[in-house]
Amino acid sequence: MNAATSYEGMKLYQSDKAPNPRRVRIFLAEKGIVLPLVPVDLGKMEHRGEAFTRLNPRQRVPTLVLEDGTAIAETIAICRYFEALKPEPNLFGTTPKEQGLVEMWQRFVELDLLFPVMHAFRHLHPAMAEREVPQVKEWGEANKPKALAFLAFLDDQLAERGYIAGERFTVADITALVTIDFMKLARIEVPEEAKHLRRWHTVVSERPSAKA
Amino acid sequence: MNAATSYEGMKLYQSDKAPNPRRVRIFLAEKGIVLPLVPVDLGKMEHRGEAFTRLNPRQRVPTLVLEDGTAIAETIAICRYFEALKPEPNLFGTTPKEQGLVEMWQRFVELDLLFPVMHAFRHLHPAMAEREVPQVKEWGEANKPKALAFLAFLDDQLAERGYIAGERFTVADITALVTIDFMKLARIEVPEEAKHLRRWHTVVSERPSAKA
Repeated sequence: MNAATSYEGMKLYQSDKAPNPRRVRIFLAEKGIVLPLVPVDLGKMEHRGEAFTRLNPRQRVPTLVLEDGTAIAETIAICRYFEALKPEPNLFGTTPKEQGLVEMWQRFVELDLLFPVMHAFRHLHPAMAEREVPQVKEWGEANKPKALAFLAFLDDQLAERGYIAGERFTVADITALVTIDFMKLARIEVPEEAKHLRRWHTVVSERPSAKA
Repeated sequence: MNAATSYEGMKLYQSDKAPNPRRVRIFLAEKGIVLPLVPVDLGKMEHRGEAFTRLNPRQRVPTLVLEDGTAIAETIAICRYFEALKPEPNLFGTTPKEQGLVEMWQRFVELDLLFPVMHAFRHLHPAMAEREVPQVKEWGEANKPKALAFLAFLDDQLAERGYIAGERFTVADITALVTIDFMKLARIEVPEEAKHLRRWHTVVSERPSAKA
């Protein structure tokens, strides 16, 4: 077991209700990293307010603030920062080839599953009408079959190996787990027949980090 | 000047007509890396054919094939592979903090400029009707103001520093340069008044790598 490392001088601005902050929380749990969390109320549009916009002009959570005041936004950028700061356990690959393959799978999952799911959610869910302007319902609907096609593809891939990018857990599994758990808000479900994907989902959901 | 390194056993499947392969070609030129390029004819849908799909099931260029037959797809994954293989000159950041900030800016440019420009192009250009199904014109139009808003934001940022992620050229500048040069196909222009962005564009366009 990796010893826990505490970074009390940093702050992670985040929300328990959004998928991207959960990606970072799981990543930190896997690394054994503890740091103060600061809640940002997305429902009250706190991320669009003046104070938060000074930290992250793109107005998104999660955003990490270092002890010297430097703000690092974007989920994967925050994860990369911690991978460099505390390399073990490794989550982005070790050899050049593995680093390339992990990044490839992390990108495949983002581009072909997370983004379609987010678009379906943001363009179709009534709760997002104020935050996604304009909501384009036709575009929201067009994303559902894209997400379903990728789930079928992922099921085929997982017939051949234990985890998304190979035989061990990496950041690509974190992106996939969080996206799949978030899908119900976009009213997309893992198909009953996707048994390899379901097996993988059970395995990664049982890791202690999944509760983060 | 960095010595050129040749990897004759690898192959980069790519197209001279698409923006993502150019990102990799510029990255390789900056690194002083030479390797065989294999053209993929997107107009003839060669990327959707059986042979290419075996290399990259997501059917996109660029795709790198290593000497052992391993295929690494996704622009940034290919760049990461070469950053690990030949670390100098560094393009993704050195210290943990710089690595985080470069990834943050590279992401900002991708999410808030490259993707809106790609969506505007794919959903509005008649030449894409066969490849983007369904084309959702309302969604294409909705992306133009997003791209313009980010260009204005970037202009403000570049009033304060020389390059996108700091005082030196990084992968974030490559993504921004290629996106801006691609914008004319989406009928989006850098506003006349964005003088800091225009100054930066002139500087990065004069690097020998920009011709790659």
